[in-house]
Amino acid sequence: MDGSLVTGIHQLYARQSHLIDGGHADAWARTFTPDGEFHSPTYPAPVVGRDRLRAFAEDFAHAAREAGEVRRHVVTNLFVESADTTQAQVSAYLQVIGTRVTGDTAILRFTTVSDRLVRDGQDWRIARRDVRRDDTA
Amino acid sequence: MDGSLVTGIHQLYARQSHLIDGGHADAWARTFTPDGEFHSPTYPAPVVGRDRLRAFAEDFAHAAREAGEVRRHVVTNLFVESADTTQAQVSAYLQVIGTRVTGDTAILRFTTVSDRLVRDGQDWRIARRDVRRDDTA
Amino acid sequence: MDGSLVTGIHQLYARQSHLIDGGHADAWARTFTPDGEFHSPTYPAPVVGRDRLRAFAEDFAHAAREAGEVRRHVVTNLFVESADTTQAQVSAYLQVIGTRVTGDTAILRFTTVSDRLVRDGQDWRIARRDVRRDDTA
Repeated sequence: MDGSLVTGIHQLYARQSHLIDGGHADAWARTFTPDGEFHSPTYPAPVVGRDRLRAFAEDFAHAAREAGEVRRHVVTNLFVESADTTQAQVSAYLQVIGTRVTGDTAILRFTTVSDRLVRDGQDWRIARRDVRRDDTA
Repeated sequence: MDGSLVTGIHQLYARQSHLIDGGHADAWARTFTPDGEFHSPTYPAPVVGRDRLRAFAEDFAHAAREAGEVRRHVVTNLFVESADTTQAQVSAYLQVIGTRVTGDTAILRFTTVSDRLVRDGQDWRIARRDVRRDDTA
Repeated sequence: MDGSLVTGIHQLYARQSHLIDGGHADAWARTFTPDGEFHSPTYPAPVVGRDRLRAFAEDFAHAAREAGEVRRHVVTNLFVESADTTQAQVSAYLQVIGTRVTGDTAILRFTTVSDRLVRDGQDWRIARRDVRRDDTA
């Protein structure tokens, strides 16, 4: 597998968390394809398409503020299962970690994402994300 | 150091955790060389060779089920100290994180691994792993 | 962006944590430029220049020993915002995680670093680091 493909995919995942955690809902939604799908047991139905993905990211930010927490998406163990110049399949661990203004930091949930990516020019985008939560195994 | 060597090594570590955490004991054992060695203060004696490494991974999965936890090996700070086309020396942080079905997630232990790798065709394998536990320093 | 630039920057960050956590204060200080700057709300004034950076790293090690903890700098979500062959801008999540000899491991604080890097021959060095703490947002 081409090393530069792997590096570009690492960049996507690092950047994506900074976007949603930093309140950039629209830019986060654009890390998905226009018809991108987000499937997670945390939410009752799949989130499909950029408008709904943007609203999803806005809801995440709102819930964190309501809870008085700063929340972060921590990505580790990013494994590129397969990749060519047009598409890729990726698995990674994704922890949501929250910090209260009092200083307490805790892992809120531990998840694994399985993503199908497609290449869009120089950028990789997520066509479909499936999330597994360890507390609902 | 060749960037593609580093990228290939990152792939090994990401994949290795998904294998043991996903219950693929045999595939995990094959991330070591046939006579690979695993030295850790968590266990009374070194685990040497693929048969014993596979049994080790099976025991890990069994203990997690017994404890009612999903356990994950989270790798960060992967530093390739040296590498050529045939061997490499690597250090990384490895956290074992557990989630109970009740939802509580905690860092069970924080370790540092020091690994000697050898190249086997396109794949990197671990010839010897030494684990340091921070709670037994 | 050149993949090998990104890989080299990943190596800097992985190595840097092992240096400060392993008690190598002088080598840690040399991951900054000679006039490197460290700006953090944890400390009353910026730490500027290698002599003061080395003293800073020594103080970190001393405080951990006093607290009876092993402390680790865990870097994730390393995003290379821009890079050419002479300089780069990087954002990453940096957690300080502590383990007591009793075995309890906790996230002590969650921070985000924004770094300006410069190339020095084959090595990248940090010219300025700005740290954001999530508990003082």
